[in-house]
Amino acid sequence: MRAAREQVAALHTELVRYGLVVWTGGNVSGRVPGEDLFVIKPSGVDYDVLAPEDMILCTLEGEVVAGSLGSERSPSSDTAAHAYVYRNMPEVGGVVHTHSTYATAWAARAEAVPCVITAMADEFGGEIPVGPFAIIGDDSIGRGIVATLTGHRSRAVLMQNHGVFTIGKDARDAVKAAVMAEDVARTVHIARQGGAPVPIPQDAIDSLFDRYQNVYGQNPEGSLA
Amino acid sequence: MRAAREQVAALHTELVRYGLVVWTGGNVSGRVPGEDLFVIKPSGVDYDVLAPEDMILCTLEGEVVAGSLGSERSPSSDTAAHAYVYRNMPEVGGVVHTHSTYATAWAARAEAVPCVITAMADEFGGEIPVGPFAIIGDDSIGRGIVATLTGHRSRAVLMQNHGVFTIGKDARDAVKAAVMAEDVARTVHIARQGGAPVPIPQDAIDSLFDRYQNVYGQNPEGSLA
Amino acid sequence: MRAAREQVAALHTELVRYGLVVWTGGNVSGRVPGEDLFVIKPSGVDYDVLAPEDMILCTLEGEVVAGSLGSERSPSSDTAAHAYVYRNMPEVGGVVHTHSTYATAWAARAEAVPCVITAMADEFGGEIPVGPFAIIGDDSIGRGIVATLTGHRSRAVLMQNHGVFTIGKDARDAVKAAVMAEDVARTVHIARQGGAPVPIPQDAIDSLFDRYQNVYGQNPEGSLA
Amino acid sequence: MRAAREQVAALHTELVRYGLVVWTGGNVSGRVPGEDLFVIKPSGVDYDVLAPEDMILCTLEGEVVAGSLGSERSPSSDTAAHAYVYRNMPEVGGVVHTHSTYATAWAARAEAVPCVITAMADEFGGEIPVGPFAIIGDDSIGRGIVATLTGHRSRAVLMQNHGVFTIGKDARDAVKAAVMAEDVARTVHIARQGGAPVPIPQDAIDSLFDRYQNVYGQNPEGSLA
Repeated sequence: MRAAREQVAALHTELVRYGLVVWTGGNVSGRVPGEDLFVIKPSGVDYDVLAPEDMILCTLEGEVVAGSLGSERSPSSDTAAHAYVYRNMPEVGGVVHTHSTYATAWAARAEAVPCVITAMADEFGGEIPVGPFAIIGDDSIGRGIVATLTGHRSRAVLMQNHGVFTIGKDARDAVKAAVMAEDVARTVHIARQGGAPVPIPQDAIDSLFDRYQNVYGQNPEGSLA
Repeated sequence: MRAAREQVAALHTELVRYGLVVWTGGNVSGRVPGEDLFVIKPSGVDYDVLAPEDMILCTLEGEVVAGSLGSERSPSSDTAAHAYVYRNMPEVGGVVHTHSTYATAWAARAEAVPCVITAMADEFGGEIPVGPFAIIGDDSIGRGIVATLTGHRSRAVLMQNHGVFTIGKDARDAVKAAVMAEDVARTVHIARQGGAPVPIPQDAIDSLFDRYQNVYGQNPEGSLA
Repeated sequence: MRAAREQVAALHTELVRYGLVVWTGGNVSGRVPGEDLFVIKPSGVDYDVLAPEDMILCTLEGEVVAGSLGSERSPSSDTAAHAYVYRNMPEVGGVVHTHSTYATAWAARAEAVPCVITAMADEFGGEIPVGPFAIIGDDSIGRGIVATLTGHRSRAVLMQNHGVFTIGKDARDAVKAAVMAEDVARTVHIARQGGAPVPIPQDAIDSLFDRYQNVYGQNPEGSLA
Repeated sequence: MRAAREQVAALHTELVRYGLVVWTGGNVSGRVPGEDLFVIKPSGVDYDVLAPEDMILCTLEGEVVAGSLGSERSPSSDTAAHAYVYRNMPEVGGVVHTHSTYATAWAARAEAVPCVITAMADEFGGEIPVGPFAIIGDDSIGRGIVATLTGHRSRAVLMQNHGVFTIGKDARDAVKAAVMAEDVARTVHIARQGGAPVPIPQDAIDSLFDRYQNVYGQNPEGSLA
């Protein structure tokens, strides 16, 4: 549990480093291995001062665990959405939410990012899809994420008019998906400003996705999809 | 008063961190609690060397308080506009002015930023409005800010051909509004480059604004609006 | 002379800080007060390692002063252009050249940046003009700068297909002009992407320029123009 | 060999500094002087922790040298492409691959970057060409790079739908080409957003390229082309 707190606290600095968040926006959570619990960022706290002990321990129903370290604070206002994902996607070990600029720009148009660069095929296996318009207050954001990503290769979903949610086998994998989602959303946006990108044949997309999930890196372990 | 000087000096580094200012442009001021006074940045001084003792103490008429710390220097050339806001909007505790890129680009077209992302609904409760063309030399900038923001949910106003002014319950709140105004001005600009954004229904905007002002963060205290 | 070396060396870090240069591109020079000499960056040297003793002392004919500190190195390949400016514009104390992105983009189209934001009126007194296409090898770049800026309010000129040159009363003033030129070139570019900016009336431009040159900052001293 | 490891490890920080890479994407390799060997980045390792001893020594067939330092790790997944270049272009001493945003945007449209700014004429001697669509799995990426760049002045090639590969007389020269390729891809993209750039006459391009390859910097040594 200590390790989960440390990892999730540290991963928030990656959101800052890659320019995915401003002020106190955005949040990372990670499942506690072997427990029906996850840790998540507190609501409205500066990234500069987030320490492991500030992370808040929650049940899969999104309730703060009474008496746990940090439990006197309010968890991220997106906690219910994270909890819904953990309850309904047992293979997910990490969830990230940001309003990163380019991903959110596609989301504002409710337009999926088309797969026209090989890095997207590698990482997402095709387009980054759009989820429904849903606002905070019930399970509608969580339901939209789960409905869109279940059975989809992509670990990222653009929630309409809102921003991006990503999932991963652990919190680090979800943060990587958030970084890559913004990177490809930006590149494809800029590509389209100059004219129509060349499509990538579906069999090439399939081949790139398969290889990347199984060969890339030092310890390939397969993907969520 | 010392605390006001320290807070206002420190907040200027946030303008630099978020890329809202270049060279010596931009300024933050904060009302001194319980006094008819505010502190503001000196004119044309590097951000690298701004210390609490450099902040300049002014009356609500925009006059430097004779004999006060730093009073041998000239205050920001926008001091009259800040003073006009404090005189006419007693609920305002902080004012920020920048020429941040995307906000100023909308201002150059005299076009309000439409509310097509939920973060705008949260933070501004709708569009970011445009104020009149007004140049330095009398109260016309201050009057334009007050006329535009009085009774408006937005804490940010795009002054035509000029830049953005933001207000807040305190200086930090006004800086947050400046950061968020640039962030949403950028995201909506980029969204529109790829086609028409999907509108957000008014009742959803109302609901998001209401919730964000009353629930978000560790100590929700309601908004100015 | 030592002070001139230190100032010019230090000012190069501002080019890096504001993202105006990549690799070893760009250069700053400063006139040595009271002498027919100036100091300039060496050619093709990393910004990370530029020290005062690396600056190269040149005559107003652009020749390295034999035996001076650093004289074993080649000066910037733009030295002839800087020298031409110092010979022909005695009021100029500093010159800067960069290929900063947005200024160079306007230069590639040979299009002046129109004055549609008040910060441009303040700093440049109107549009940023375009100079001729000229390539390295003789005095044609220097002649183009001088011909375009003589009698013009602007301290910046976009050399067609090339980049931007700025002048100032000293090296710091020329660096400020380079920073502001890129900032306004970017803002006006982005403004135009969304539609036509609103023009600023000429009398307002005149009034803003006059005031900024004579009132802004702690020690207003008038401008070059 | 130690020097090659140190140089290649250190050069990866330049990719980060200039924003050419995110997460673990991108790679630099350098030929070991006097040997039929090169060193390259390991696959999927964070830029923050890349040390000289992590670089992987490979033969010109792209095989890891058994028993060499770091040989227990997998080399970059682009190793086969680097090896193909070294086998077939003996004058090449360094190879770099990135998915930098603007270069990749042009690549997604299979569109060469036209030479409309003098910095491109200096550095690339004309346009940056496009290579074929090719995916990982055989020599097709390496063949595409070599076929496109052989006899071409440009040290950069945009591989369709993929990213950019650059070559140099050594690893540092290839990194410089990667930095400059992104810089000019960005500037020309932005120039075109505002209208048609002015073409540069071919004789001026030739003259600029010739001069830059032979005169610029402290120790001009000619170019690869």
